[in-house]
This record gives sequence, structure tokens and C-alpha cells, in this order.
Amino acid sequence: MAPRKVMEPDTINENVRKTNYAVRGEIYLRASELQKEGKKIIFTNVGNPHALGQKPLTFPRQVMALCQAPFLMDDPNAGMLFPPDAIARAKSYLAMTSGGVGAYSDSRGLPGVRKEIAEFIQERDGFPSDPELIFLTDGASKGVQQVLNALIRGEKDGVLVPIPQYPLYSASITLLGGTLVPYYLNEESNWGLDVVDLRAQVAAARKKGITVRGLVFINPGNPTGQCLTEQNLRELIELCYTERLVLLADEVYQTNVYQDQRPFVSAKKVLKGMGGIISRELELVSFHTVSKGFLGECGQRGGYLEMTNIHPLIVEELYKVASISLSPNITGQIMLGLMVKPPKRGDYSYQKYITESKEILESLRRRAHIMTDGFNSCKNIVCNFTEGAMYSFPRVMLPPGAIAAAKKEGKAPDAYYCLKLLEATGISTVPGSGFGQKDGSFHMRTTILPSEDEMPAMMAAFKKFNDAFMAEYSNQYVSKL
Amino acid sequence: MAPRKVMEPDTINENVRKTNYAVRGEIYLRASELQKEGKKIIFTNVGNPHALGQKPLTFPRQVMALCQAPFLMDDPNAGMLFPPDAIARAKSYLAMTSGGVGAYSDSRGLPGVRKEIAEFIQERDGFPSDPELIFLTDGASKGVQQVLNALIRGEKDGVLVPIPQYPLYSASITLLGGTLVPYYLNEESNWGLDVVDLRAQVAAARKKGITVRGLVFINPGNPTGQCLTEQNLRELIELCYTERLVLLADEVYQTNVYQDQRPFVSAKKVLKGMGGIISRELELVSFHTVSKGFLGECGQRGGYLEMTNIHPLIVEELYKVASISLSPNITGQIMLGLMVKPPKRGDYSYQKYITESKEILESLRRRAHIMTDGFNSCKNIVCNFTEGAMYSFPRVMLPPGAIAAAKKEGKAPDAYYCLKLLEATGISTVPGSGFGQKDGSFHMRTTILPSEDEMPAMMAAFKKFNDAFMAEYSNQYVSKL
Repeated sequence: MAPRKVMEPDTINENVRKTNYAVRGEIYLRASELQKEGKKIIFTNVGNPHALGQKPLTFPRQVMALCQAPFLMDDPNAGMLFPPDAIARAKSYLAMTSGGVGAYSDSRGLPGVRKEIAEFIQERDGFPSDPELIFLTDGASKGVQQVLNALIRGEKDGVLVPIPQYPLYSASITLLGGTLVPYYLNEESNWGLDVVDLRAQVAAARKKGITVRGLVFINPGNPTGQCLTEQNLRELIELCYTERLVLLADEVYQTNVYQDQRPFVSAKKVLKGMGGIISRELELVSFHTVSKGFLGECGQRGGYLEMTNIHPLIVEELYKVASISLSPNITGQIMLGLMVKPPKRGDYSYQKYITESKEILESLRRRAHIMTDGFNSCKNIVCNFTEGAMYSFPRVMLPPGAIAAAKKEGKAPDAYYCLKLLEATGISTVPGSGFGQKDGSFHMRTTILPSEDEMPAMMAAFKKFNDAFMAEYSNQYVSKL
Repeated sequence: MAPRKVMEPDTINENVRKTNYAVRGEIYLRASELQKEGKKIIFTNVGNPHALGQKPLTFPRQVMALCQAPFLMDDPNAGMLFPPDAIARAKSYLAMTSGGVGAYSDSRGLPGVRKEIAEFIQERDGFPSDPELIFLTDGASKGVQQVLNALIRGEKDGVLVPIPQYPLYSASITLLGGTLVPYYLNEESNWGLDVVDLRAQVAAARKKGITVRGLVFINPGNPTGQCLTEQNLRELIELCYTERLVLLADEVYQTNVYQDQRPFVSAKKVLKGMGGIISRELELVSFHTVSKGFLGECGQRGGYLEMTNIHPLIVEELYKVASISLSPNITGQIMLGLMVKPPKRGDYSYQKYITESKEILESLRRRAHIMTDGFNSCKNIVCNFTEGAMYSFPRVMLPPGAIAAAKKEGKAPDAYYCLKLLEATGISTVPGSGFGQKDGSFHMRTTILPSEDEMPAMMAAFKKFNDAFMAEYSNQYVSKL
């Protein structure tokens, strides 16, 4: 027998062991295997638009190319490959760095980009934004983890997270040794918030000895796609204030809105609009990214957080912790600048930029409909409309026979369903159990990102699989009775 | 009085509060202030070559530009700006991605780049390397933190770290709630290792109830610059095996070697060359990066770790934790590929690449000498030669008067000295107390990165400041007696 290692599953940090992350869990690993074996896989497990054929926007990538290779601008032929406004923007970003994209920036990010972001927020919300309170991060996830790391002191500290949730939150809270306090979104009212229930969850957690310290919301929702109203946000803010909670506003899908009644409104705007002591006191951290929206530049890893009413010494503590990793990647930072300051009317690249970005957003809106309608045409499936974000989260009513079959294989029923779906169709999704769901209900998450051309065929394959699956297990169940 | 916030210094995670990170600490913050006020600052606090004028190598940046803007390759004029081998390499990297640099990769990094790294390691060491055991990270620091996070279970778990050390280690161990167990490098023998002392430190820590679980070494050393011998490495490996420690090999400076007697040799090579059970059992994680060497591409945030003899289930745990952040940035990954697979003889860009990289390394070697000699010409300063890495770590013998003056201002004596240096000359360094040093000894760390042109003037300014400082406090001390 081999001698025991220092690091074995039962001898490492138990928080590492306890952490789950379903988005790249069992189904994803199986899909990767099948892909290696030559099967065509449609990866809808993660919001990764470029992997499903979305083309990058031309202007930002022209600027990025020039930032990587500034010597191109000394070439007399540069003008044949790059428009003048891309050259000008590249020069302006390079001037913000201390030595181009190969030099570390300040650990909070390039001051020039943070200023551009503050201007964007001010323009969006109509309230001032301070670049000193904006930190750039390697994707928004890193920022979320930095804030949670300061907030969570031990297992008695709780953070309220919507269920269903994006598992970044459950995974990070477990990894940091805290306690997730769930609050349920209401599927029957299109995944709406229920503030009365929320207060009850806080009270229940406190009764168990948990110090509830923070509340996360995701707007538009992931995986649920709902868009919050201003009224919802006001209620959340008031609750956080009276219950003494830090509000974490995950607003990475703010550009991905597919209905017109409730345009995106930021928590910062609502808070500042409320006026009075609450607007000067409530601790709020808001997150945004280049990975979503119409850019979909996931691989560039550019995110930011904005702090509102955070104690100045805590801002310093977060700066100190960010310093240990020295600097977020510079090109991701520049992509953030390009996101918040696109070409403006009259610029050489304006028309192309508008055309490209509108095309993506309009297609996403159509795909949201195609997908919701497709799911709702299936046996035993009901699905709320994807009002925003990039996901569809249908409820799958599994027959008792399927539940029993899953149990026999030691799998969660929805994981069993998603595995069968993968094997039959190559569609890689994530079971609802990875996001949390009410006991006895089952879901799956898929992105709405497969290309519009391919989507009808994909939904047809899905329906064929699902309806056969439902028929098989319904029959089975009946025959066994 | 304003109401208390949820997050105040005494109500956040105490590990966050206790963490120190001197490389971007007090002196750096003061330097940033002075820079804002218009003073010329030479930032030598962090190894950031491009910020001090080092130019990026042409070929890798040509490839990076094309990866950011693949549509350039469809332009008939592309050949006027890009050589054929850069175009071919860009195509090969894009083919490794799932949708260009805007798509997330697998959380371990692009399989194609991991394969290139495995080939590089195999070629370097003469022993096989498995791409499945190589994970790409946003800079090497992130990889170090991932491994420490699995290793450290609580404050009773200790990790041996050389003193002086790079504060990534002290900061990360504190942040993760573990205990740093120091082992001292011997300044008198050019910062050499003393394995007898190391064993004594392990025993002493165990007596205090600490479970020592890992050992970090940095080769070539940071901030100390020493290059370990094969014999040193064998001793370290044997010690780790008999004491049941995971060995963390920080080898990010492996290309930065400025003497010829002891070329770099990797811990993996020494371990595998030892044969027998130890070579199959000792748990080793090795780290490397694009930030150092002659590339100096800090801002790209590309790093990797290679695991040797790590339990397969622990490899899976590390994969799971990496998944929470989805993917390291793609361009940093590609830069890693370009580092380990440079143009080869006969390629169009070969000669230019060789010329550019040799020039940087040869200049660094000359600068290592200029700096060491400069420090050793100063009053009360002795300095070991920088055998490798990018730093000089002179010992500064402070007169009692200076120590008293520092105490009066509530500062560490070497921090006081570094602040005075900054105010007088604009040279931003890091006090030795940020890295650890034997009690009663004082040091400062500076990089050897200021440009060769500017270095004589900088060293002259340093000498002028230092000698005046020493004279002032020596006199003061004498006159007060």
C-alpha cells in the first residue's frame, strides 16, 4: 500500500472539500469526455457567448490589438488595417499605463479606466461616482470573493443568497467558511422577490445563532432571468438598512434585458434617489463585467466593483488584499474602458459598432422567446420567460419513475435527467440542484446563447428527447403500479 | 456620531485585517502621492520591467495582436504588418480556443498550451511531464494561493517560508488563517540554505503544537537573489520527505541567472533524478510565470503550476476550486505558450527574438553588477551579489541615532530609512522588515530593473543620500553621548 500523502481528501482544508460548483460539475466533465470521443457537444452550461459562435465587436478588438503591439502604430501601413479612432483610443489607453499592457497597474486598476467607469456610472444613474471607490478585478467573480472574504469571519456569519442562485455565491461562501442563508424566489410570480419571506429568513437564521451580515441579489437574475422593479430594489435596500446588512448587487447582466416594461435600474441609482440617511449609510457594493452584455468577452477577464458608503478603512483593507495579487490583467481593464466608453456619434467606427451590438442584442431577445416557447411546448415542462440575463431555467416535472431511476443510480433526479439529455443530444446543461430549488421541484439551466440558426434544431432535439423521456417513465411508472 | 457600519476594521474577518503586504505598503503609497504631486519617482518596489522602460519582445506581441483581432488575418494587407510565422502561431493558438480570446477556457487553461508547457518541461528536465497535471493561472501568485488554500486547515497548520521571503507567502498564509514557520537564509554565506537549522525550526514548531505541512523555497531567491545548488535541492527534498511536507517550488526567476557556476536546475529534475520511492512519493508543486525572465510581461497575468506526485483526488479538488473563477485570462495563457515555445532556428522571427532577448538578459547581468558594486561603495552598506532573480537586498547598518529617530516616529528603522530615501531621491524601495530579517539587522529591497542608462545616476543619487544620512546620524549619536 502506498504511504499516505500529506494532502489527501480527508486531510485538506475541509472548506475546499465541502465546496460545490455545479456549472463545471459532473455533467460538464462528462460532456468534455464525450467531446474528446468525437461527439458534437453544445455547451450551454456556462454563459460563454464566443464559444457558441458570437463574433467579437470589431472596434474594441482593433484597440486591443494595437495595445498589444503598439509598434504597429509606427508602421506607415497601419492606416490600411486600423481606423483612426481605434488608433487614437489605443494611444489614450497606453498613455494610462505605466509601460503598456506588460506592466502591472496599481492593484485597484488603471486610474484612467477607473475614471471612465465613474463617468459611465454617473451618466447611467444621474448621481456622482468616485473613481477611488472603483476597483478593477480579473472578472467580476474575483471582486465578489474579495468582498465576501472581508465580510465573513466564520461559520456563524451568514450571507443571504437568492435561491435559485448563481453557484459562485454558494461556492465562495463555503470556501470562505461562512453560512449561506437562502431566500426563495417565487417561480409562480416569474421568480419575483418576496420581502416578507426574506425578513422571515433573516429572523429564522438569527434564531439559529447566525449573524446575518450581507445580502446578495442578481439583477437581471441568474439563472432565473427576472428583472427587478424599482419598488423591489427599494424594499431590498430598506430591508438591508433595518437589518444591518451589506448589499451586494450583482448587476453583470445590466445590458441583457429582453422586455421593455422594466428597463434595468441600478441599486446605486435607487439608493441615491431615496435620499436621507439611508442613502448616505447603506453599505452597497455593485459588480459589473465585460463578460456579458453584447461584448461577451469572458476570456478577457475584466470586471469591476463600485463601493458606496463603505467605511474608508475597509476600502483600504480591500486595496491591501488586492495588492497581494499585484494587478488585474491590463487588457481586461482596457476592455472595461472600451465597454463603458464606446465610439460616439460622429466617430469613424460608430455606425459599425452600433450595427454589430444591436444585432447581438436583438438576436438574444429573439432567442429568449424561441427558447421559452420551445420549452413550454414540451411535455411536463413549464418555463418563465427570460426577461434578462442569458439563461432559461425551465421547471421539469419528473415522473416518479424517473425519480426512482435516478435514486437507483445515486444521482439527483434533475442531474439524471440532464445526463440523459447530454447522452442523447449533446446538449450540456446544468441541473437545477446546482443552483438550489424548492424541495421536490426540479429544473435545468441552459443559456440562450446557441446561435439563432441552430436553435430551432436544438429545441427540436430537446423536445424529442424530453417527450420520449417523459413517456418512457410515465409508462414505466404506470406499468409498475 | 455616525452609526456603526456592518464592516468596520474591528468587525471584518480578522485574517484580512492582520495581513501585511509591504511591496505595496506605506512607502509605495507615499511614492504614489509624490508622483501625483509631480515628483519623478523610480518605482523599484516591485519587479515590473516594462514600467521601467523595458520593451516587449516583438514576436510574442505580434501573435497577441493577431489573437485579439483575428479578422486582421483576412486582410490582404496583413502581410505588410505581420511576419508569416506570427500569423501561423496566432492561427495555431486560436485553434486551441473554443471561440478566440473572448471565450472562457477550461478552468485549468487551454489544453493546447498545457501541452506546450509539458513539452518545455520535459525538454528542460529530461523527465516526462503530464499536461493534465499543469494548471494555468492568472499569474503565479494565484496558483500559490490555490495550493496554500488546500494545504492550510487552520492556525495550527504551519508552512515553512524562507526569511527573507517574498511577502506573497506571509500575506497569503495570514489571509488563509495558517501559521508561517520561518527558516532563515544565511546572509554571511550569500543567503545560503542551512538544512540543519531548517530541521531545528521544524522541531521547534512541532513543539509549539504546529503541524508543519509544507515548505516554500524561491530559486533564484526573492528578495535575496541566491541560486540554489543541486545539492541544496536534494537536501530540501529529503527533508520534505522525511518530515512529510509538501514542497512548493517558486521558480519564477528560472531564466534570470547572472552567474555561470550554478545554472538553474528545477526541483522536479532533481527529484526525478534521485529515483527510488522518494521520486514517486514526494508531493511537489512548481510555479512559473510570464512576468519575469526576459519577457517581463507582468500585466498579462500568465502563470502555471505543475503538480508532481499530488494525490489524484487533490488534483480534482484544485480543479474544482479553480472552476469557481471559471477561467484564467486567455491572452495570459497564450503568452505562456509563447514563452515556452519561442521561434526556433530557421523561423522568420528567430534572429530578432534571440537578439532582443539576449540584449535584455545581458543588460540585466550588467545591472546586477553595477548595483551590487554601487551599494558596496556606500557607507554602512554591504550587499551580496544578485546571482539571479531581479532584486538587490543590501544590508543597511543603521546608526543608533537613526534607530532612535525612527522609533520616535513610530516606524520600523528600515522603513524610516526608505521613506527618507524616497523623499530625497524619488527612489521607491521596500524596507527589509517587509520581507523578514534577523532581529537587529536592517535591509532594503530594490529591483535591478531601472534602465542601464539611468542606473549610474540613480546609484550616485542613492550614495549621496545614504552617505549623508549615515554621517548625519553618526554625528548626532556621537554628539548626544
